[in-house]
Amino acid sequence: MTHRIAIIAGDGIGTEVMPEGLRALDAAAKRFDIDLEYRHFDFGNCDYYLEHGQMLPDDWFDQLKDFDAIFYGAVGWPEKVPDHISLWGSLLQFRRQFDQYINLRPCKLLPGIKSPLADRQPGDIDFYVVRENTEGEYSSIGGRMFEGSEREVVIQETVMTRTGIDRVLKYAFDLAQSRPRKKLTSATKSNGISITMPYWDERVKEMAKRYPEIDVDQFHIDILTANFVMHPDWFDVVVASNLFGDILSDLGPACTGTIGVAPSANINPDGTFPSLFEPVHGSAPDIAGKGIANPIGQIWSGAMMLEHLGYQEAGKAIVDAFEAVLAEGDAKILTPDIRGQGTTESLGKAIAERV
Amino acid sequence: MTHRIAIIAGDGIGTEVMPEGLRALDAAAKRFDIDLEYRHFDFGNCDYYLEHGQMLPDDWFDQLKDFDAIFYGAVGWPEKVPDHISLWGSLLQFRRQFDQYINLRPCKLLPGIKSPLADRQPGDIDFYVVRENTEGEYSSIGGRMFEGSEREVVIQETVMTRTGIDRVLKYAFDLAQSRPRKKLTSATKSNGISITMPYWDERVKEMAKRYPEIDVDQFHIDILTANFVMHPDWFDVVVASNLFGDILSDLGPACTGTIGVAPSANINPDGTFPSLFEPVHGSAPDIAGKGIANPIGQIWSGAMMLEHLGYQEAGKAIVDAFEAVLAEGDAKILTPDIRGQGTTESLGKAIAERV
Ligand SMILES: CC(C)[C@H](C(=O)O)[C@@H](O)C(=O)O
Ligand SMILES: CC(C)[C@H](C(=O)O)[C@@H](O)C(=O)O
Repeated sequence: MTHRIAIIAGDGIGTEVMPEGLRALDAAAKRFDIDLEYRHFDFGNCDYYLEHGQMLPDDWFDQLKDFDAIFYGAVGWPEKVPDHISLWGSLLQFRRQFDQYINLRPCKLLPGIKSPLADRQPGDIDFYVVRENTEGEYSSIGGRMFEGSEREVVIQETVMTRTGIDRVLKYAFDLAQSRPRKKLTSATKSNGISITMPYWDERVKEMAKRYPEIDVDQFHIDILTANFVMHPDWFDVVVASNLFGDILSDLGPACTGTIGVAPSANINPDGTFPSLFEPVHGSAPDIAGKGIANPIGQIWSGAMMLEHLGYQEAGKAIVDAFEAVLAEGDAKILTPDIRGQGTTESLGKAIAERV
Repeated sequence: MTHRIAIIAGDGIGTEVMPEGLRALDAAAKRFDIDLEYRHFDFGNCDYYLEHGQMLPDDWFDQLKDFDAIFYGAVGWPEKVPDHISLWGSLLQFRRQFDQYINLRPCKLLPGIKSPLADRQPGDIDFYVVRENTEGEYSSIGGRMFEGSEREVVIQETVMTRTGIDRVLKYAFDLAQSRPRKKLTSATKSNGISITMPYWDERVKEMAKRYPEIDVDQFHIDILTANFVMHPDWFDVVVASNLFGDILSDLGPACTGTIGVAPSANINPDGTFPSLFEPVHGSAPDIAGKGIANPIGQIWSGAMMLEHLGYQEAGKAIVDAFEAVLAEGDAKILTPDIRGQGTTESLGKAIAERV
């Protein structure tokens, strides 16, 4: 069975880490006998925008919809195109139009990566943030009134649907069910955001009835962010609305020191549309072109893609490979961000060899 | 000149830390010759609710409006009254009705208090979060449709006004102007929350023109929370909307290990109504009645109240006093949460003596 993968490298270091992501994928494909077929697309980057006045061609949906997955680098180059244009014009389109309603991000303390938290060892922190990825606080409904005057007012609506909430909760509960600790934490703010968040809490309570084995708790988002710092070991699966999930899935990797290497999966669990896999980091214009970007975010995203395609073992082989390279800590191989003198390629090759 | 202070101890440990807050205030009042007149109120707690069916008497506004300040303990006791009732029925009423549009919280690494962050020393972290405290994401506009069905949808509106944004920005810029680093960071999310947050950014840009000396930057809330953990030394004054400020003003104290001792000021800068000073911590039903609650949050809130009333030196004397007691680290005096065997009273007395 051939898996067709659409490759969109994007901007800046996206184009540098992508080859290493593919190198690790190729190694895993070879070892586990997986048939991957790549097709490269030159849209979804800011140069494309400068040439065509839009981030994507008109028929992007049809061009991409039959792929089994999209492997994305990083998008954005504020000096060429403002972020809200490049992002709403590409990544956020994919999430919405391909109904990738799950954004999944692991927060894991890795060997050889310094965490800003004191006294934490690999193994202490290992959880997932499951973020609702299509509705909620990221709505485009609202507007501005009395423009330009002292009375000016802006309104933006948060929209949550039962369908939208239930499906992300189901995914998160299923994930918790598959893990040894079977623990699920819900992010809320029902003591302050008095309409949408109490509804979120109600749906969590309903869903929890179907999963009697799961240990469920909830925290208001303010104290939850505090607990990410004070007690990151408490968490196993954290489920959150679009905005809260956005915050928690940056804060979590920050706590583990992995914000530069964390992966993310934008998943359409129904399989109606392709899911999209991308590193959490951006295109980093400041180091682009130097060949020193850390490729682990891209490589780890590739591992998540293999798992999504059903190859758990192959995904794990990639994760084991970069963990081993990190644990060895050979400065000649590692990139400068993790205290090495190596390059994107030296680190990517070392990982691929390990696979 | 006599300053009339309304005292509301609230629930749980609120009633235990309040006497120590007053003890420190008395000591400072004596030393700096300040005339404080207290009046104690027995409403604004959950027992009052159980007796009267509401958190506050009907005429609370008139009873309190002419005081120079309100000194609040902690409110809430979920086993007696659900949090959203006790909080919307008291604290959130004060904030709105007394137009306390600034919520100010210091984030400061203190001697003798363990921070969860590695390698940080007192002096490294010392910033303020200035939170908009009356509008924004905490609106009560919205509702539910198709209730009970699969099509169920909930909507809640975020409402921001030019007046509301400009006044909190002005306060924050003035505060930054008064500090040596003169740095202001604005929390945004204009790449995702596409109507209200771009407006917030515009107003920041406008206000910045009036403060040419201030070094202004902005971060999206997701990476900002990450930077609180990774680079807390970057910040001086951080200004944020109601929700973002709520998150940042819990996360900031969490990073300094001071969430149990941080103070907060709910300020009406115009002086039309009394401002309110309260510790960040809650009523802590689990340790209530044991006499071991750490009183520093209440004491520090008292210091902020004195500063607000115009007594900078007296406020500083209180802060210096508890910093000195913490630096000494006499376990017989300190409360258990900071690795001592003392009591609320032993710590409160030691601090008052120092003042
Ligand atoms: C209790 C809650 C409504 C309140 C808030 O969100 O404002 C609290 O978290 C705070 O920060 O004072
Ligand atoms: C770039 C931005 C719109 C995006 C988001 O907020 O979803 C990013 O922060 C992310 O988490 O992928």
